[in-house]
Amino acid sequence: MALAEFEIIHRYFSAQGAARADVACGVGDDGAVLRVPPDRELVVSLDTLVEAVHFPAATPAGAVGYKALAVGLSDLAAMGAEPAWLTLGLTLPRPDASWLEAFSAGLGGLAARHGLALVGGDLTRGPLAVTVQVHGLVPPGGAVLRRGARPGDGIYVTGELGAAAAAVAHLRGELSLPPDLAVVARRRLERPQPRVAEALALRGLVRAAIDVSDGLLADLGHILEASGVGARLELQALPLHEVLQALVPRLGLETCQRLALAGGDDYELCFVAPVQAEAEISARLAALRCPVARVGVIEVHPGLRCRQADGRLLSCPDGGYEHFHE
Amino acid sequence: MALAEFEIIHRYFSAQGAARADVACGVGDDGAVLRVPPDRELVVSLDTLVEAVHFPAATPAGAVGYKALAVGLSDLAAMGAEPAWLTLGLTLPRPDASWLEAFSAGLGGLAARHGLALVGGDLTRGPLAVTVQVHGLVPPGGAVLRRGARPGDGIYVTGELGAAAAAVAHLRGELSLPPDLAVVARRRLERPQPRVAEALALRGLVRAAIDVSDGLLADLGHILEASGVGARLELQALPLHEVLQALVPRLGLETCQRLALAGGDDYELCFVAPVQAEAEISARLAALRCPVARVGVIEVHPGLRCRQADGRLLSCPDGGYEHFHE
Repeated sequence: MALAEFEIIHRYFSAQGAARADVACGVGDDGAVLRVPPDRELVVSLDTLVEAVHFPAATPAGAVGYKALAVGLSDLAAMGAEPAWLTLGLTLPRPDASWLEAFSAGLGGLAARHGLALVGGDLTRGPLAVTVQVHGLVPPGGAVLRRGARPGDGIYVTGELGAAAAAVAHLRGELSLPPDLAVVARRRLERPQPRVAEALALRGLVRAAIDVSDGLLADLGHILEASGVGARLELQALPLHEVLQALVPRLGLETCQRLALAGGDDYELCFVAPVQAEAEISARLAALRCPVARVGVIEVHPGLRCRQADGRLLSCPDGGYEHFHE
Repeated sequence: MALAEFEIIHRYFSAQGAARADVACGVGDDGAVLRVPPDRELVVSLDTLVEAVHFPAATPAGAVGYKALAVGLSDLAAMGAEPAWLTLGLTLPRPDASWLEAFSAGLGGLAARHGLALVGGDLTRGPLAVTVQVHGLVPPGGAVLRRGARPGDGIYVTGELGAAAAAVAHLRGELSLPPDLAVVARRRLERPQPRVAEALALRGLVRAAIDVSDGLLADLGHILEASGVGARLELQALPLHEVLQALVPRLGLETCQRLALAGGDDYELCFVAPVQAEAEISARLAALRCPVARVGVIEVHPGLRCRQADGRLLSCPDGGYEHFHE
């Protein structure tokens, strides 16, 4: 992008996010220089969003910028890490001032709210894609991994599931949502709220965690595999988003449950904790006005069993997002 | 990429690069957990290479993997940082086993040689692009920035310039190289040797540095701007790569000099140091068998002046890579 590159970086990206004293050198050199406190470990996560693969070509630039960072923040939340810095790789077919303005506002606003400084990156020409690396901090040994689940532990989910999947199905023409629900669902798809404060509030109480990006079945499956355990889910306990609840009369409960189980992009936390910690967990999350539901229990026997209220087992899809056909 | 994603990561990327004791958690969780020593600052740099923009579509996969990391290592060298970890964002139109095998070998081999561990990343579907973030370590306050140049300091360049630019011109059909020189030039374009060991050997001697990625004029220009100074280059001191030297009889010296000044992709170091340090600099680089040339001097007056041996000033292109027409 030659000279225009420097102008774009200067105008839209050199002062985004929070100002932090631990940035010794930010945007504008060959690299950023960052100070990790001696009593902290560094957590990093990198995600790429590609146009027409991870978001529709019509997605507003502000939502693209917002979401590119939100998925990274959600990973930091899953690790129990406090956000600190981000780097940005932005590939654009052509520089467009109004697109860049909205994109940088979407990304920068979310960064500022979570105390992240934008410290560097790369701006290149090509098919639209955004790569964000987030950097967070945890006390030594304090990162929450996927491998800590033990038989008898409770399985918990924050917030509600399935609205983003409904929005995707609606955008694909596979499901028709009433206008008001379509707005709610699309907002949820484009502007997920990463559970950063919730994750920090849960420090010390949680044995394993993951964020729900590919669907609860797939993501919980990663915890089970990493921990060498199995699980039983109680489907009546699944926190269906209001968008899905409104669809139950039309589609039936089981179809809505499948959408909540297999649909990605919710960016809620799924975590595993000893049931003895449940009262404390509920209290801490209630203080943040964050709903939490116990949706199942870790078992010795490998695999994932989904049980209806009447005791019937639902045959679970393999997991991950599946196209939804109404 | 659903399930195939995990298989690809496991097969090609989970054990690439060096094994490092400071990686508390590597590939396979929501984030990597890394231990920065208390007496070190963290240096990070992110670069994206897009097919048909940064490398021709016909580039061998091994060269793509190699170069995606080499450009990052070159940034760490420019900062005086010791390489530690890398993350990888790989966007691929479709998974292809032989491509992935060669790509991961090209990237992983270079990572291992420089002691870097691959600790995480993202694999997505889309137009071919590679984003690498490198992470390095410097003593507190020890990072070499662009802004330290002072009038009277010498301007130095490692190695030789211009072969990569000649290879680009050759590939574009703008310049015809004899077969043996074409091989040498293309090797230089596809497999640049980042000056990491050289940069570490120069610690404490250098006031400002940058790597030559966009062309010496453009890159030195960044140092001058950041430092608020100007410079005079002595063109007869420019270290022309043997590929360019062989072209002098055909193209003339001045054309070859322009190619060396404006051509990018050399990934040599351009650094500024007090001339009193020159003997020590030469000795340390000679121990690494790395050529070094003093190509000019920092001046108070802003701007960049290029002087021929006979005292004539060459009118300098604005800088950056320009298409070359024979």
